[in-house]
Amino acid sequence: MAPNLDGYFKQVDELKGHFIERLREAVAIPSVSAEADRRPDVIRMGHWLVEQLHKLGAETELREPGKQPGTDLDLPPIVLGRYGRDKSKRTILVYGHYDVQPAFKSDGWDTEPFELTVQPDGRLCGRGSTDDKGPVLGWLNAIEAHQKAGIDFPVNLLMCFEGMEENGSEGLDEVVIEEGKKYFADADAVCISDNYWLGTERPCLTYGLRGVNYYSLEISGPGADLHSGVFGGLTHEPMTDLVRVLGSLVEPDGTILVKGIAEQVAPVTADEEGLYEGIAFTMETLHQSLGSKTTIFEDKKKTLMARWRMPSLSLHGVEGAFSAPGAKTVIPAKVIGKFSIRTVPNMEIEKTNQLVYKHVEEAFKKLNSKNTMKVYAQHCGNWWVASPKHWNFEAAAKATERVWGVRPDFTREGGSIPITITFQEATGKNVLLLPMGSSTDGAHSINEKLDTKNYIEGIKLLGAYLHYVAEEEMV
Amino acid sequence: MAPNLDGYFKQVDELKGHFIERLREAVAIPSVSAEADRRPDVIRMGHWLVEQLHKLGAETELREPGKQPGTDLDLPPIVLGRYGRDKSKRTILVYGHYDVQPAFKSDGWDTEPFELTVQPDGRLCGRGSTDDKGPVLGWLNAIEAHQKAGIDFPVNLLMCFEGMEENGSEGLDEVVIEEGKKYFADADAVCISDNYWLGTERPCLTYGLRGVNYYSLEISGPGADLHSGVFGGLTHEPMTDLVRVLGSLVEPDGTILVKGIAEQVAPVTADEEGLYEGIAFTMETLHQSLGSKTTIFEDKKKTLMARWRMPSLSLHGVEGAFSAPGAKTVIPAKVIGKFSIRTVPNMEIEKTNQLVYKHVEEAFKKLNSKNTMKVYAQHCGNWWVASPKHWNFEAAAKATERVWGVRPDFTREGGSIPITITFQEATGKNVLLLPMGSSTDGAHSINEKLDTKNYIEGIKLLGAYLHYVAEEEMV
Ligand SMILES: [Zn+2]
Ligand SMILES: [Zn+2]
Ligand SMILES: [Zn+2]
Ligand SMILES: [Zn+2]
Repeated sequence: MAPNLDGYFKQVDELKGHFIERLREAVAIPSVSAEADRRPDVIRMGHWLVEQLHKLGAETELREPGKQPGTDLDLPPIVLGRYGRDKSKRTILVYGHYDVQPAFKSDGWDTEPFELTVQPDGRLCGRGSTDDKGPVLGWLNAIEAHQKAGIDFPVNLLMCFEGMEENGSEGLDEVVIEEGKKYFADADAVCISDNYWLGTERPCLTYGLRGVNYYSLEISGPGADLHSGVFGGLTHEPMTDLVRVLGSLVEPDGTILVKGIAEQVAPVTADEEGLYEGIAFTMETLHQSLGSKTTIFEDKKKTLMARWRMPSLSLHGVEGAFSAPGAKTVIPAKVIGKFSIRTVPNMEIEKTNQLVYKHVEEAFKKLNSKNTMKVYAQHCGNWWVASPKHWNFEAAAKATERVWGVRPDFTREGGSIPITITFQEATGKNVLLLPMGSSTDGAHSINEKLDTKNYIEGIKLLGAYLHYVAEEEMV
Repeated sequence: MAPNLDGYFKQVDELKGHFIERLREAVAIPSVSAEADRRPDVIRMGHWLVEQLHKLGAETELREPGKQPGTDLDLPPIVLGRYGRDKSKRTILVYGHYDVQPAFKSDGWDTEPFELTVQPDGRLCGRGSTDDKGPVLGWLNAIEAHQKAGIDFPVNLLMCFEGMEENGSEGLDEVVIEEGKKYFADADAVCISDNYWLGTERPCLTYGLRGVNYYSLEISGPGADLHSGVFGGLTHEPMTDLVRVLGSLVEPDGTILVKGIAEQVAPVTADEEGLYEGIAFTMETLHQSLGSKTTIFEDKKKTLMARWRMPSLSLHGVEGAFSAPGAKTVIPAKVIGKFSIRTVPNMEIEKTNQLVYKHVEEAFKKLNSKNTMKVYAQHCGNWWVASPKHWNFEAAAKATERVWGVRPDFTREGGSIPITITFQEATGKNVLLLPMGSSTDGAHSINEKLDTKNYIEGIKLLGAYLHYVAEEEMV
């Protein structure tokens, strides 16, 4: 039976100004995790969140992972929260992060990045508005609206809010794994609100992410950088070798040339074939977000498949070579090519690494160079795919339809959110990605925003989801 | 008839301490032309030099080329000097530079870079000691030793000392061309002391330099840098195209793959074949200076030919891609590959450019990429070869044998000294490169030094050269 949510929705609308003020307070704390100077602000933001939770009657515990490796900086606390201990209710674990990307007005912002500005068109501009302070506060706002409307909260809510997401999530994995069967023991399902709609019109639920294996390919020869006038033509040059090996990895049309990668990719099922056409996504919008028409494919289906379920290999750059503007006649002594492979089912991390190493070694060997080559993975994160038919997703779909009046798209993403897999493995439960913002929010860019509509309807959505997930038949 | 130089040599030895003091004064003025803050010191150095010249009875004129383009910085003066106006004597034009490379103790210097330190082994350590304050003062010291010994100065000496050599020689070309038939009108030959012996034992005279054509190869696609998770696999990536095109330019063994380059290279003459074996140069020393055994050739002759008389193509780096340590999952939107070709007789600059453009365009076209490619020469400087049999060289060879007791090697160099050609073209006279320092002086490195022996014998050499060149039969 569809839950009665009218009272809750009405209350959210009435608290709109209050909720925007809460977001303003949060944005005003410049909790930039990647800047050493801002670390005290990140920690202050964690304590602000604890205070807010206490005011709402939630219990909290802090996990403090100590110093950031290689620095004297304290890691900000991982805030664990619990609201409700009713054994007759389901328990839902939610995750978000309270740190933000760096932002300076001088980067080109139209407004002060750490002053939330309500624009005439409804945009709530400010660093962290959409990534991820808006969604984190969404859960708190949902609690408050229930309290003020006098409506029973439908679930026990477990919360895990971290302050290092934009800087490698240092310490989080360990805590999540550690608490999987402790603090999170009674979780029935997991919900993460830290991604975005595919476009700007239709909401979505996300059930898959690509993984990423990131490689360094070092080629070294001379003991120090050389002058190309003096040494050009008489020594093997690491850059010459490097571009050859990098060029052997991938075709200009994106085809990966490392043998054995394609064979690992799960075949497209008949079921899946029909999945793409209905998705709210157009090549025009893609061209707009690319800022060019340099897409490899002309059609939506192949493009979405390329993003969601096919591996890709990108060359990111070269460390150690001349990289400034102008002209420098250097022969770099040691160059490190950086490339990564986005991975998909059923690719295996270790197998993929071995295939890459083998390919690179063979390609280098063919060069007959006297230079020295080394290749290694800098970091690897697995792909993730959940079942979109799980009752957790079904509940979220119903809530979305109730709030937005439209069935959400079921989407995957090309990027990685490594903590998703950690939550899945630590709790053994289904994980749902339930976005609040839209594709144009500019999470890591200047003029980051969250539309007022997405914020307020998003608060309704998170609350509605908890009602539906409390009732949804577990299948 | 060999000139009687004993009195002069004796006087130089007697003034040794005084000459070292003069070098100490010069080194103490940190005339770093590439640092805006040091510009007043560069200008001060120019005026110090004028003062020294006046004390020796030389006339001077300053050429002040105005502001450095794109900055508010005054260009340091080009110091023109003349010592002697005896129409019965030959006139020799010499060039040097009084600016130096940047240097900070913290770069790893054992001593303060702007305090000349006399080491127990005779090294005169300090920035500019060998490049090029030692040689510049060499001319002044030669004048002084003649005066103090009461020996008639054998030639009229024209001097051209600039203060921007380490920063692009801004304004110099124009002045040299302008003065070719004016201030320099009576020059009979030109001598530049701003390079080094091939090794550490045997002096050399240099009669050839390679040229350099420096290229930028831009490939652009997306409007801005992209996240490889979101866009990897669905767009053409500029880096993928760039490494392919760069990889098509040159083999790992140094073979240039641009069609038409090899055909422009002057054939090796029978005369030349015998030239290399006698040169004081060993593969061992080369391996030491390389810091590795990654030479393409195993033998001296091929190696020297590769440096002196064969073109080479080096890949210097990539602008616009990820170049820092660590991992960044970026798809760079616009990347600029930098490469250059060292040119030799009889390559033509414009023809070479056209061959490179054609090659790059064809290589890019083969990729079938939707990205956009642009290639252009950033700067081009011609190769230079003088006749080592010219009386100017013959005089220098005799002077070298007299001072060092050994016939000098006749060498070419792999690098470029563009002003050499300008002097040759502006005056129409033979240009000789007559080095004072040796290959281990570390001109642009930390702990730059000039051996006391090279400084003092070098002063003798410059003076002796003037005596021989005054008498040498003009053939
Ligand atoms: Zn986020
Ligand atoms: Zn983020
Ligand atoms: Zn120099
Ligand atoms: Zn120099």
